[in-house]
Amino acid sequence: MDKPVRHFQEELEALQGRLLEMGGLAEERVRAAVYGLAARDLAAIDKVLRGDEPVNRLHIEVDERCFRLLALYQPMATDLRAIVAAVKINTDLERVGDLAVNIAEAAQRYVGHAPVKKLIDIPRMGDIAQSMLRDALDAYVKRDTALAHQVLNEDDQLDALKTQVFRELLTYMLQDPSTVEPALDLILVSRHLERIGDHATNIAEDVIFMVSALDVRHHLNINP
Amino acid sequence: MDKPVRHFQEELEALQGRLLEMGGLAEERVRAAVYGLAARDLAAIDKVLRGDEPVNRLHIEVDERCFRLLALYQPMATDLRAIVAAVKINTDLERVGDLAVNIAEAAQRYVGHAPVKKLIDIPRMGDIAQSMLRDALDAYVKRDTALAHQVLNEDDQLDALKTQVFRELLTYMLQDPSTVEPALDLILVSRHLERIGDHATNIAEDVIFMVSALDVRHHLNINP
Repeated sequence: MDKPVRHFQEELEALQGRLLEMGGLAEERVRAAVYGLAARDLAAIDKVLRGDEPVNRLHIEVDERCFRLLALYQPMATDLRAIVAAVKINTDLERVGDLAVNIAEAAQRYVGHAPVKKLIDIPRMGDIAQSMLRDALDAYVKRDTALAHQVLNEDDQLDALKTQVFRELLTYMLQDPSTVEPALDLILVSRHLERIGDHATNIAEDVIFMVSALDVRHHLNINP
Repeated sequence: MDKPVRHFQEELEALQGRLLEMGGLAEERVRAAVYGLAARDLAAIDKVLRGDEPVNRLHIEVDERCFRLLALYQPMATDLRAIVAAVKINTDLERVGDLAVNIAEAAQRYVGHAPVKKLIDIPRMGDIAQSMLRDALDAYVKRDTALAHQVLNEDDQLDALKTQVFRELLTYMLQDPSTVEPALDLILVSRHLERIGDHATNIAEDVIFMVSALDVRHHLNINP
């Protein structure tokens, strides 16, 4: 049984490698979309709009790898939870890729108007959302619940910024109707970024669930 | 091996029953939130805001049932795909429950202002989103890809209504600043409903994937 076990571990590591790759791509697309918005760079925006193929391809590949691992090795306990978590994380990362497209769509419209204001809070939200994603995936690979809990805390920061962005833009909209359309797009962008934070939160919660269920099962283990 | 197989089928049916129950609850919460908004009924809105416990409890229970089935029976092919689909559908339904809360939150704010207009398209969007959810879950239980494809088509209707709602409300906002805040909440509601449609679409896509992968495997089966 040594060889199948080794193969399983190798395939599980390959799966995690692909998930990290997908996370890196999704994160980069969020960064590029927010950059395109803040810099009013239509070429960068266009690149995001047309570049979701690699994330979608990885999404299918990761799903197939999960099924393969479940079907061929029939893993138990820890390994089973890690793979089911991978199925969920895969879905979250694919949605993050979609949200990068939504941000780029809003950015494309926004650039067609005069700028409402200098963007400070939205790029900050983008930075936080990206770092939450990175930390959540790190927490998954390292089975690090402390880091996962940190991701949950960062989400409060993101929510506070979203509320602040909303209030500020509302003031502009009430004072000057010409800002209504572009301000609406900025509000949408801040909500897309908040949702990216929610996906990072989902991943972090999966990690906590996966690891704590692990602990519970550990006590039941007769052979350590 | 007859008894474990029968137990597995019974447990799989119980799992699907709980998923349907959860879908029914989530759908009812969407209905109640949209009703509360359209009827300006604060008691109904408040009930939605405070009533997400049952969906959350089912979410945990369904997840546990999926793990139990995977760990105890190590299912293959069809059954494996049905359970992994259940894990994904469970996540989608929990998010639908959250979106009902988001609609109720916007409704609560909206009712604090004079009505912007008589609501027609938003209740229609609510009806479509609910029927998409119902059809998607039906398609899962019956392994019905034709019905799943129908759900994908309904989503276009929902997107078209969302765009129409947006354009109409934008006109109000540009003409009368006093409508900016309440119109913003209606725009948010229409996006929440669109996302509920997206979750139904995800479920439908899982069904198509599950059933078509089934067909592929059928050809590989040596013992029919």
